[in-house]
Amino acid sequence: MPNQGNSTRKVDVLIIGGGVIGCSLALRLAQAKLQVTVLDRNEIGLEASSAAAGMIGPHAEAVEPADFFNLSVASRDLYPQFATEIEELSGERVGYRRDGTLLVSFADKDDLDLENVYHIQKNLGFAPARLTASQVLEAVPRLSPQVRGGLLLPGDHWVDNERLMHALFIAGRRLGVSFHTRSAVRKLNGRDRRVQSLEVDSGTSAAPSIYTAERYVLAAGSWSGELAATLGLSLPMTPCRGQMLEFESAWELPIIVRHGLHYLVPRSGRRIAMGTTAEYAGFDRVVTGEGLRSIVTGVAELTPHLADMHFRRAWAGLRPDTADHLPILGYGDWENLLFATGHFRHGILLAPITAQLLAELILSGQASQPLDLYRPARFGP
Amino acid sequence: MPNQGNSTRKVDVLIIGGGVIGCSLALRLAQAKLQVTVLDRNEIGLEASSAAAGMIGPHAEAVEPADFFNLSVASRDLYPQFATEIEELSGERVGYRRDGTLLVSFADKDDLDLENVYHIQKNLGFAPARLTASQVLEAVPRLSPQVRGGLLLPGDHWVDNERLMHALFIAGRRLGVSFHTRSAVRKLNGRDRRVQSLEVDSGTSAAPSIYTAERYVLAAGSWSGELAATLGLSLPMTPCRGQMLEFESAWELPIIVRHGLHYLVPRSGRRIAMGTTAEYAGFDRVVTGEGLRSIVTGVAELTPHLADMHFRRAWAGLRPDTADHLPILGYGDWENLLFATGHFRHGILLAPITAQLLAELILSGQASQPLDLYRPARFGP
Repeated sequence: MPNQGNSTRKVDVLIIGGGVIGCSLALRLAQAKLQVTVLDRNEIGLEASSAAAGMIGPHAEAVEPADFFNLSVASRDLYPQFATEIEELSGERVGYRRDGTLLVSFADKDDLDLENVYHIQKNLGFAPARLTASQVLEAVPRLSPQVRGGLLLPGDHWVDNERLMHALFIAGRRLGVSFHTRSAVRKLNGRDRRVQSLEVDSGTSAAPSIYTAERYVLAAGSWSGELAATLGLSLPMTPCRGQMLEFESAWELPIIVRHGLHYLVPRSGRRIAMGTTAEYAGFDRVVTGEGLRSIVTGVAELTPHLADMHFRRAWAGLRPDTADHLPILGYGDWENLLFATGHFRHGILLAPITAQLLAELILSGQASQPLDLYRPARFGP
Repeated sequence: MPNQGNSTRKVDVLIIGGGVIGCSLALRLAQAKLQVTVLDRNEIGLEASSAAAGMIGPHAEAVEPADFFNLSVASRDLYPQFATEIEELSGERVGYRRDGTLLVSFADKDDLDLENVYHIQKNLGFAPARLTASQVLEAVPRLSPQVRGGLLLPGDHWVDNERLMHALFIAGRRLGVSFHTRSAVRKLNGRDRRVQSLEVDSGTSAAPSIYTAERYVLAAGSWSGELAATLGLSLPMTPCRGQMLEFESAWELPIIVRHGLHYLVPRSGRRIAMGTTAEYAGFDRVVTGEGLRSIVTGVAELTPHLADMHFRRAWAGLRPDTADHLPILGYGDWENLLFATGHFRHGILLAPITAQLLAELILSGQASQPLDLYRPARFGP
């Protein structure tokens, strides 16, 4: 009985999902003086946005399709200004760094992969640098002497994503964004292709709270599919689990090192994040014995110095994957419902461009670049 | 300036170290109406006693020298009564089980090890049972089909050692044992081969507390060496780090499974403890990347079902090892100082017999079995 809910609030924009996408968009809209509420089923940024390693890596990650690579590079290009702005607004540091990514090779197959990335990058006008084994070991002395060579991608940056989420929250609050945490949206109500309200669990109270707005943004990551389904919409959204480990090391890792799915990411205080896995195992956000095994054996190939790495924690996050692995952005068939979800492995990277384009759509009705590739309707009605 | 300490307490026996050895002895002495104080630098049972896997395994662990094996078997034989008594005194369960240990083989070398254990056990009059690969898999269906065979040692038991420590603490308190936690002994004072007092850190207060007793028992595990040194005694005590992992599994493990240093130990609630490592790395009680790697790769050989094991925690403990890997028990050259330390991998197993023999020494001056092999003086003055 939604109409008997215990409260009604009408704002300009209701954003469902307080991850890096929802919070970045909220910031842009608040800067344009809109009244914005962010709803999250948990605390702000607690899901994939915090679970990530913080790599801003269009060059190491996403080279095709070309349109998506260009979107990724455009977002990466926004990062210096984005990071500075959030630091100034929040007074918090976000640990943004631009040292690049080092891809390393241990086998013929790796050599081929690196050559492939080299030529793609070169043809796109970027400046990848081939490194010999000894150059790799000079750059990162603790890597395995078995390394055969490397490829330095200077355009890949990274950020302390946990700090970024904290700073986004502080900055948003200072600009007047209203954050409602532990507020799980149960249902979107609508008719005639117009969303009319949201029903939100009200904790102990029996009746749900009703939220209304001029516009609604679905930015709920892996949970977007089941929310869209309450309107009868089909979004092919599948959580892809990624497990991670964090160690504190006796030595300094100067740069991100990647080898296929395995990587080492430096964090403040000599912490090193290690990842990862890619598993389709539902919403079960657990760390498994197999996940631990595959990460530590993968990392053991990268460096023999595991004995002086001290275990801090293990966790798992759910990447919001879609049927074509591309995000879902912009308007679908509902006139006041926008999508900003399905960012898969690229949520941290794509946050600035997603926030910019969605804000343009909301504020002017027109995004500054075409979003056809990412339109919600591509999966059918 | 120890004589300016802020308190003086005189009891019958002061036990330095609130691990399974110190607490078991305290219980026996309190049952004989002695006034006992247990001092621990931390909380009760927080070091090796809780870090252990809880195996009571003389048959799988300790077959030589014969005297030590006999001591181990004698202690194992005390366990049923010991466990029942502690449960009755405390009202707590300690999870004592008698299902035995299953040694498994995956290689020629393992086959030889198992045959060796089989013949030793048989000659000692015990009843080890050779299992074929299919019998092993019938007993523990989730083991790897690569298993070649097994050896069931029905005489090996186990206990939930964390619960045991809790129950020992409750039982001791009910019998009047005084537990002083977060009370680090800094110095033993003595002369003419007689201990006169202990100096204990008094938290925020500047002067140490002074404790006095008729007799003193050094049961401080890995920290016993540095305490003995304050009296000018040399105890060759070296911490041997053991790393452990605990998972919650989707399946039931019916029995302890061992393969060299690697093992799976069932705990309540479908928890499985996995171990371990043996490292001489000082007092650094950390879990390392290398420890994780070696445990999970060792366990991956035992069972392919790591994907449905959910990580709960990782920890490390310090086994108090001695130069000959045997415990240090009884009186040395100081007339009112007893030793009950150096139990290495066998503290949980040896607690009942150690408590019994040390209580006999204290109460009657005579232990019911010779302790020559374990005398403190064997390492020199």
